[in-house]
Amino acid sequence: MSIVVVGSIAFDSIKTPLGHRDRALGGAANYFAMAAHFFGKVKMVGIVGEDFPKSHLDLLERKNVDIGGIQRVPGRSFHWQGEYGEDLNTARTIATELNVFEQFLPEVPESYRKEDTVFLANIDPTLQIHVLKQMHAPKIKALDSMNFWIERKPSELKKAISMVDILFINDAEIRALTGEYNMVKAIAGAHKIGARIVVIKRGEYGSLLSTDNGMCFVPAYPLESVFDPTGAGDSFAGGFLGYLDQQPALSLTALKRAMLLGTIMSSFVIEQFSFDRLLEIRPHDIEDRVYKLSMMANLSNL
Amino acid sequence: MSIVVVGSIAFDSIKTPLGHRDRALGGAANYFAMAAHFFGKVKMVGIVGEDFPKSHLDLLERKNVDIGGIQRVPGRSFHWQGEYGEDLNTARTIATELNVFEQFLPEVPESYRKEDTVFLANIDPTLQIHVLKQMHAPKIKALDSMNFWIERKPSELKKAISMVDILFINDAEIRALTGEYNMVKAIAGAHKIGARIVVIKRGEYGSLLSTDNGMCFVPAYPLESVFDPTGAGDSFAGGFLGYLDQQPALSLTALKRAMLLGTIMSSFVIEQFSFDRLLEIRPHDIEDRVYKLSMMANLSNL
Repeated sequence: MSIVVVGSIAFDSIKTPLGHRDRALGGAANYFAMAAHFFGKVKMVGIVGEDFPKSHLDLLERKNVDIGGIQRVPGRSFHWQGEYGEDLNTARTIATELNVFEQFLPEVPESYRKEDTVFLANIDPTLQIHVLKQMHAPKIKALDSMNFWIERKPSELKKAISMVDILFINDAEIRALTGEYNMVKAIAGAHKIGARIVVIKRGEYGSLLSTDNGMCFVPAYPLESVFDPTGAGDSFAGGFLGYLDQQPALSLTALKRAMLLGTIMSSFVIEQFSFDRLLEIRPHDIEDRVYKLSMMANLSNL
Repeated sequence: MSIVVVGSIAFDSIKTPLGHRDRALGGAANYFAMAAHFFGKVKMVGIVGEDFPKSHLDLLERKNVDIGGIQRVPGRSFHWQGEYGEDLNTARTIATELNVFEQFLPEVPESYRKEDTVFLANIDPTLQIHVLKQMHAPKIKALDSMNFWIERKPSELKKAISMVDILFINDAEIRALTGEYNMVKAIAGAHKIGARIVVIKRGEYGSLLSTDNGMCFVPAYPLESVFDPTGAGDSFAGGFLGYLDQQPALSLTALKRAMLLGTIMSSFVIEQFSFDRLLEIRPHDIEDRVYKLSMMANLSNL
């Protein structure tokens, strides 16, 4: 069992109230893989320029990540510059240099196509559909997007959503996507578009899962210092799908634990710039936070 | 066992995106009592003018609420006019007519003073301290406040907080009170001021409890239609303390269930204007929502 992830691999230059960092390693597929590899094998599809450090690709390989689907082409890598205000909930984009990402046409290597799980990180929904068509018969298809595509390619995005099992989305995005402000109605709207499982990421307020079998809420892991929220959503998806890919079925119990693991993986990412913190932790650090968080959220047996 | 509540009894004229209502019955003490009476006896201390309907005081008495501490004096009752935008999280005050409330000096009747639980709803912290001094030796002392007093009487408010066991507060208020943006640090700051138990109300994002023995999170009860958020905080306190007043001790288990009951009582209040919905429900409606919410929040046994 492996997960195929398709998305950006980038440099991020980031300013937060606590500091700044130039050209940190980032990109959705990168954050996803750096979180998901703790649970099993990840196979990446992406594009980088000649300026992308070979050392990072080597690191991914050492972490059991297949980089055979990463194209290295002439030119410069995707570079995002952004900054966060004190609330750390929303990023302000200062500059986006697409560079080689502009010509990205994801080709899924033959050796990836029979995998059971695929994560379509935030890219043009047309490309997300293009990837799905290349996969044979994955059991778990998941998708993330952003306001940019909700505004610019709503029908294409809705088509992509109707083709997947799991939609990762945040509060503002699901409201924009469905035109409903009330969260219960917005969730119903997202299910109607075709997402069987909806995962709403609410930053410091935790996350929310909705399926035919019911809803579940997971609080954010309380941290004394949030350093840089970049990559929180993709590392959440990495923990979530990394765990789920190893499970026999998409039961509500498995989904709830996936929510916990997504929450915990993102809690590590936001403690430092880039995915620095993920390079330090060990599986027991993950288990420790999972235990503490489930105790805090536990309302049974009252 | 009874709860003594001290606070406003008022008329509210409210505009929300879904409608408006003039001179609805409201006020913090009123909302509190209308929620808490489901669990046990409530004794009110407050002030109303001649314009306040006798029929509502009669209703309170039928609901097992002692109104002996409500002064009825010449003049008009407190009248608040406010409106809510689409997010329903923050009210914009259009007008506040204090009227008889301006002369409010809470006198706790002798027959109230030996009670075990006291709730100081949002009033001048000087008056909150004045009330506490009249009580003999309550086992549970709880306090609510607002930004107005945090800005205008910070040292008086901190003194009041240091005298109680439980502080009810919202996100923005605890940040203003402690000067800490990060929630973990803000909570630590509130404990340092002297609140042994801190309950943070976060509207649609649920609530959070912090004690020496740990934290606990409760999501909001998901509602398809939120009609009017006025009174949500005070009915939360009503459910919370109404339940707690009946328990043998302030254990973490009892506090967690109190969080659930607070959440559920406020979920009913916001479904309609004023406390209209609380006049319709029965105990089994409360139990039904408690069960559903604890299922949604339950992350144990994974």
